[in-house]
Amino acid sequence: MSLDTARMVQMANAIRALSMDAVQAANSGHPGMPMGMADVATVLWSEYLKHDPKAPGWSDRDRFVLSAGHGSMLIYSLLHLAGYDRPTMEDIRNFRQIESPCAGHPENFLLDGVESTTGPLGQGLAMAVGMAMAERHLNATFGDEIVDHRTWVIAGDGCLMEGINHEAIGLAGHLKLGRMVVFWDDNNITIDGSTELSTSENIKARYEATGWHVVSCDGHDFDDIRRAIDEAVADDRPSLVACKTVIGKGAPNKQGTSATHGAPLGDEEISAARAVLGWDAKPFEIPEQVLSDWRGTAERGKKAHADWQDRLGQSGRRAEFERRMAGELPEGFSLDGYIQALIEEPQKVATRKASEMALAEINTKLPETIGGSADLTGSNNTKAGGIGPFTADDYSGRYVYYGIREFGMAAAMNGMALHGGVIPYGGTFLVFTDYCRAAIRLSALQQVRVVYVMTHDSIGLGEDGPTHQPVEHVQSLRMMPNLLVMRPADAVETAECWDIALRQPDRPTVLALSRQNLPQMRTHQLSENMTQYGGYRLKASQAPRRVILVATGSELHVAMECAERLEESGIGADVVSMVCTQLFDEQDDAYRSDILPDVSPDEILRVSIEAGTTFGWDRYTMTHGLRIGIDRFGASAPAGDLFDKFGLTADAIVPQIMNKLNG
Amino acid sequence: MSLDTARMVQMANAIRALSMDAVQAANSGHPGMPMGMADVATVLWSEYLKHDPKAPGWSDRDRFVLSAGHGSMLIYSLLHLAGYDRPTMEDIRNFRQIESPCAGHPENFLLDGVESTTGPLGQGLAMAVGMAMAERHLNATFGDEIVDHRTWVIAGDGCLMEGINHEAIGLAGHLKLGRMVVFWDDNNITIDGSTELSTSENIKARYEATGWHVVSCDGHDFDDIRRAIDEAVADDRPSLVACKTVIGKGAPNKQGTSATHGAPLGDEEISAARAVLGWDAKPFEIPEQVLSDWRGTAERGKKAHADWQDRLGQSGRRAEFERRMAGELPEGFSLDGYIQALIEEPQKVATRKASEMALAEINTKLPETIGGSADLTGSNNTKAGGIGPFTADDYSGRYVYYGIREFGMAAAMNGMALHGGVIPYGGTFLVFTDYCRAAIRLSALQQVRVVYVMTHDSIGLGEDGPTHQPVEHVQSLRMMPNLLVMRPADAVETAECWDIALRQPDRPTVLALSRQNLPQMRTHQLSENMTQYGGYRLKASQAPRRVILVATGSELHVAMECAERLEESGIGADVVSMVCTQLFDEQDDAYRSDILPDVSPDEILRVSIEAGTTFGWDRYTMTHGLRIGIDRFGASAPAGDLFDKFGLTADAIVPQIMNKLNG
Repeated sequence: MSLDTARMVQMANAIRALSMDAVQAANSGHPGMPMGMADVATVLWSEYLKHDPKAPGWSDRDRFVLSAGHGSMLIYSLLHLAGYDRPTMEDIRNFRQIESPCAGHPENFLLDGVESTTGPLGQGLAMAVGMAMAERHLNATFGDEIVDHRTWVIAGDGCLMEGINHEAIGLAGHLKLGRMVVFWDDNNITIDGSTELSTSENIKARYEATGWHVVSCDGHDFDDIRRAIDEAVADDRPSLVACKTVIGKGAPNKQGTSATHGAPLGDEEISAARAVLGWDAKPFEIPEQVLSDWRGTAERGKKAHADWQDRLGQSGRRAEFERRMAGELPEGFSLDGYIQALIEEPQKVATRKASEMALAEINTKLPETIGGSADLTGSNNTKAGGIGPFTADDYSGRYVYYGIREFGMAAAMNGMALHGGVIPYGGTFLVFTDYCRAAIRLSALQQVRVVYVMTHDSIGLGEDGPTHQPVEHVQSLRMMPNLLVMRPADAVETAECWDIALRQPDRPTVLALSRQNLPQMRTHQLSENMTQYGGYRLKASQAPRRVILVATGSELHVAMECAERLEESGIGADVVSMVCTQLFDEQDDAYRSDILPDVSPDEILRVSIEAGTTFGWDRYTMTHGLRIGIDRFGASAPAGDLFDKFGLTADAIVPQIMNKLNG
Repeated sequence: MSLDTARMVQMANAIRALSMDAVQAANSGHPGMPMGMADVATVLWSEYLKHDPKAPGWSDRDRFVLSAGHGSMLIYSLLHLAGYDRPTMEDIRNFRQIESPCAGHPENFLLDGVESTTGPLGQGLAMAVGMAMAERHLNATFGDEIVDHRTWVIAGDGCLMEGINHEAIGLAGHLKLGRMVVFWDDNNITIDGSTELSTSENIKARYEATGWHVVSCDGHDFDDIRRAIDEAVADDRPSLVACKTVIGKGAPNKQGTSATHGAPLGDEEISAARAVLGWDAKPFEIPEQVLSDWRGTAERGKKAHADWQDRLGQSGRRAEFERRMAGELPEGFSLDGYIQALIEEPQKVATRKASEMALAEINTKLPETIGGSADLTGSNNTKAGGIGPFTADDYSGRYVYYGIREFGMAAAMNGMALHGGVIPYGGTFLVFTDYCRAAIRLSALQQVRVVYVMTHDSIGLGEDGPTHQPVEHVQSLRMMPNLLVMRPADAVETAECWDIALRQPDRPTVLALSRQNLPQMRTHQLSENMTQYGGYRLKASQAPRRVILVATGSELHVAMECAERLEESGIGADVVSMVCTQLFDEQDDAYRSDILPDVSPDEILRVSIEAGTTFGWDRYTMTHGLRIGIDRFGASAPAGDLFDKFGLTADAIVPQIMNKLNG
């Protein structure tokens, strides 16, 4: 049931006023989009969006993603007007100021109701695809009574021009995610000016070609907006609602131009806009009737929430559903038995294969995992444990054929993790982290549990050559905040890495895994998961310690071979497996200085060995240590030839160590 | 004039045989695509492609890009058969072996005739867009007599699924690059299996929606292929030729399946294929008639080349054209006068503005620059020196509105640089290097002169918050081989950076530039471009030297302020501006140890100051030095507040230094 149009107009104008005023007060921000999409957002939030402002974490709420995140005042206005506890008006007054939850772009970790961090264009829409996938999967698992909600997105021209848009809508169209609706703010304006400067595309035809339902509306006509949403909801394909809007609508002299896009309107124009809009209230004040109309819209969701609570209470699946949504692993989940079996019967396998072996355990024990690969299933070894494909015909499947869409896959995984109830993992070659790095960063920033299964992690990839051989990637990812990068050396460490990754509710993990077979280094039982320390002493020196070899992944066995040769010459050498530098750095001083004592290289020489850039390894070797690695692009040849060529063998390394010790 | 079909069939089968045999000998590689596209490639190369195998560097040759680079045996076969000096048959026998120019994927730096390094999917097609842009620009500049050629691409389903495809074809369609033709190897197979696993898109309709001409053909029918190419050439839009093919065509038991995609066929299947194809020759042998037919196809191009030489000889623009194609700067090109003016009248400007000021000089003096931005023109300050837009109506323009397509922009710039005759530069926010990192890597690997103008290079960006604030980016790019990363501190250094970047014929540069104004630090004339040394001493200590402050960009003035305060306390402090770590690392030992003497921190404490990750700075501070930076994500607030919050002020840093000195 709709309010009369005059009252709806003022509800929308409240968004416009808050947006103009907050941007003006901050002296920076983007008023154009919130003002242009205020009418669409008002209809959506007051009449369609299923949410309960007093229970923002309600599992069966609709998800709303502001993909055009620069228009953040739109969502801050909506949350405040609809009655969420935060942002308060004081928060909005402090838009873009230090410590305000009303940041320049919406941040999921600052405000309830902000489902995802947006601003890097295109990714919001792509994350929404993941949310819609998670929703359908959980629906297939738990039924309509418990999971049955929609995913709504507001996107701008930027979101639609970015390459990831193609990947995301291709996936959504193929998977027939009919409960997803994207509102395209079709205003013909980008930062540089008219969209005609840079594009001539028929967007609607492109979406139709990609399996989407497309409908258009006048984005300033409430009835037309309702008609379009009704059509979108009725169609079983994902829908694009092209909303013809005027950017900065209401600012009489600037609307329709890029001048409103990313700068304050100025006091004069704001006054003029107030006059045009018939908005008399002072800045940051909302007339009582308007606020009351907005707050009244929450009743619909409140009732839906209560009904859902009743249904959940009657469900036999309640405990399992709540466990999954809370992101807790099943009680007693452990890979210890599997690891014990490895210790008893060591395996010489590639760590990508070891990952598959671990996944066979994990996918059997954890029903919440959803795996996939960007068209490298057989290479990434990501399909394990008997999980079947997730398809338009069967959303209960747990394996996604993402296609050749690395960025779209990573963003979809972020969306799934944000939705909750599932733990997504997905694979590609490690070198192609470059294709999805912007989404990996959003995994880390948004504090979500996503596991990246990145195989073929060095020149060990061999013949495919330098385009496919990571050199700088492992190290460059290690410096990304809140991201765990793990490079296990054998089957045992790989299982330990998986165990740790699954137990990180608020950070993502990149597993860097070998193509080539590796000997099992861990062949006797240790009392605990050693990878949790990030780096640990695999071998203690026998002769008096003169050297500490610090290695990772496929170079750990090389380090061990070096150590053995050194010991034969009476030179004591520790070997440290540095599986995860981030976890090692988190250990206390006592642990770290036990493993890597802070003494002069004359006393103990530290040597790093990793088949990648040496840049940054000074951190663990100290300045006068020795860093063995590859500071150039790789080459195409069988892997063994490349390890020889680049000197990553004991034959090449030991003489350098001896030289340094004698130097 | 076409050869009769039977002879054409054997010409195509020569490609099939070489591809099967080379992959089998290497025991790795991708036979399916070369065998599937052999017929299309035979028609294209023998009847349409304008090239002269004995003069592979001929400026007006058509450009051929194998975007589906994993099918590298296709281009190696074509180059050999058509009569290029390399690869020899011995090279092909050594496919994927160490030191062979026939690498797993085609590498532009290993073989003439390989126009670009391909394999990272989608990028070949996107680079071809840049080549076609360069061609039209030079055509507009030098006329049909000197520049008039086509760009041909072979792309697979992977190239078309990648997000960059959307960006690239959007740009090409908008710019009406009618001399570009993309052959889509429409075989319904990807690595994981049928394309139906992951996509339901109507590709032809999508290309049409994006302003492309689309035509289909039977990829195994020579006449139908000719018809399609003729239609493509006749249309003034870029063309997609959808070639219906059978992957692995000729392998009787495996063709049409993903088994042929990325693995050797096996001896038995190869024997069976020989029988089916009627190919009796031994591995790596080409029957005389077939080789003679192939070599005969070179006559067409040889004549065209000779005619062109005549026209060039008669042109008054010859010297200028040859200079540009050789990539040489005009004699006497210098920014010295501009820098001198800055010294005389110091400017407090953001380095992005300083870049604009330098570009005003550069674009006036160098007609070969082509600038642009991914929809941040006013923020990146990339439009300078009176250059006008490059549009479908005016290809003589030198400014490209790339739209919100960072990856597409970077790849297009690679294509322009590979084409030659132009020097491309383009801008976005530094944080969005994550969106185009895979193309930056290809700039470095392909050894091309591309200048990335990456602005808003730290928390100094301010209110837009953590999604827009680079933290790890500068450092993570520094470890990419063959890439110069420069972070200038003021207008003088910015000009020096530009001068150096323009003089790198075989490596790309990333300029990391500030949003915020910075005081000019270089206010007295130094005898030369100091940035060429990577790092240099801006200020020598007055009191006995106890500290060396190493800073970059917007933190250099902070370091200077710290030094002044230390000197006031009687502590001598050098200040080193580390504009470009790569260039500094290339200096000789004497220079480096003069700037950063290898002495104990008890004697001289080294301190790094950069508003980004401290990871890796040990390299310059030594282990026991002090590293001031930001090891977490940023926040949304005015820049000044953030510098306070993160302790990047003299007030916060000096006490830490004193503490360390006294500790």
